[in-house]
Amino acid sequence: MKLIDSLNWRYATKKMNGQKVPQEKLDYILEAIRLSPSSSGLQPYEIIVISNQEVLEKIKPIAWNQSQITDCSHLLVFAAWDSYSLEKISKVFDRTVAERGLPADTMDDYKGRLWGMYGQLPVEWHANHAARQAYIALGIAMAAAAEQQVDATPIEGFTPEELDNLLGLKEKGLKSAVILPLGYRDAANDWLVNMKKVRTPKEEFVLEID
Amino acid sequence: MKLIDSLNWRYATKKMNGQKVPQEKLDYILEAIRLSPSSSGLQPYEIIVISNQEVLEKIKPIAWNQSQITDCSHLLVFAAWDSYSLEKISKVFDRTVAERGLPADTMDDYKGRLWGMYGQLPVEWHANHAARQAYIALGIAMAAAAEQQVDATPIEGFTPEELDNLLGLKEKGLKSAVILPLGYRDAANDWLVNMKKVRTPKEEFVLEID
Repeated sequence: MKLIDSLNWRYATKKMNGQKVPQEKLDYILEAIRLSPSSSGLQPYEIIVISNQEVLEKIKPIAWNQSQITDCSHLLVFAAWDSYSLEKISKVFDRTVAERGLPADTMDDYKGRLWGMYGQLPVEWHANHAARQAYIALGIAMAAAAEQQVDATPIEGFTPEELDNLLGLKEKGLKSAVILPLGYRDAANDWLVNMKKVRTPKEEFVLEID
Repeated sequence: MKLIDSLNWRYATKKMNGQKVPQEKLDYILEAIRLSPSSSGLQPYEIIVISNQEVLEKIKPIAWNQSQITDCSHLLVFAAWDSYSLEKISKVFDRTVAERGLPADTMDDYKGRLWGMYGQLPVEWHANHAARQAYIALGIAMAAAAEQQVDATPIEGFTPEELDNLLGLKEKGLKSAVILPLGYRDAANDWLVNMKKVRTPKEEFVLEID
């Protein structure tokens, strides 16, 4: 399916039916996330994949009792680094030069310049910048799910601190940025399924300077 | 092309060759951006499409003299709302209910709850939240470009205030969040083109709770 067709097929499913997403489709979506671009290639986030029903039941009240949390097949938590550090950056760059067969010091200058900037910025900037990279992957995850005819509902309506506590994310240096239930629409009971997709008209959305 | 194949094909092109992207491919990418999901469907950003070479020459020093700015075909500026307002939200929701043929007051309760939250949050939160929505579209834009075999290089390395001044964005209530040159790789002169794509291994990136 072409990307545009995938985007037109998808919608923010309000009611899911509990049906399981096959492992190969889940793996496809996770691989699309893993391949997503990020600033300096740092991929400053991790993905927590939750299918345990007891854990989902605990998350539901943290996510304002939205039904997709427990009616989904798998819940993806995009958990962004709470901060950058020279150690974290070094680990990524060391792997990059090793896998490319380059001299170990190839990226040292770049790393120095990057940390020269990041190291001076407040920790709130770090967490926010990392979360933005996760949102790139969120967009690609939704496209990947739609291509696989899997429904997905991006949810910002939850209390991040409570979810972080439940999943022990703080101890891992992570903060939940956004969550994405994956599953299948309960078409008979979803008020949104047959509504027209509405978007800002191109003439209000795109400005061309040519 | 399947999304995974598109993601494997693409890379952050370091040297572009000046070749023009055909209008229908540009339109496809812009339509994918326009169809991108956003929080409450607000699409709190606009896309500035710049192909004017004089303007691109002025942007180049603002973007740390990166060559793609002037060697690209079109530069996309993702310009996010600098803040939400009840007026902006109302405009979107009014259009939504009108296009869906619903009673004019259908979304009034939702709008009231949304503005009850947003209205209390600091303007920095607004700008940041709007920018995150633009990053969803950035991810989808890169997937759309790759599907069309168009190269794209996401760039955060620029001075937003200077770009906002040049393009008069502040007067429009916008802030440049990220920019994306679209064009074609100059394979003979791009050091990155044949390098292995390196990503965090799945076992360090994905945690399953099942």
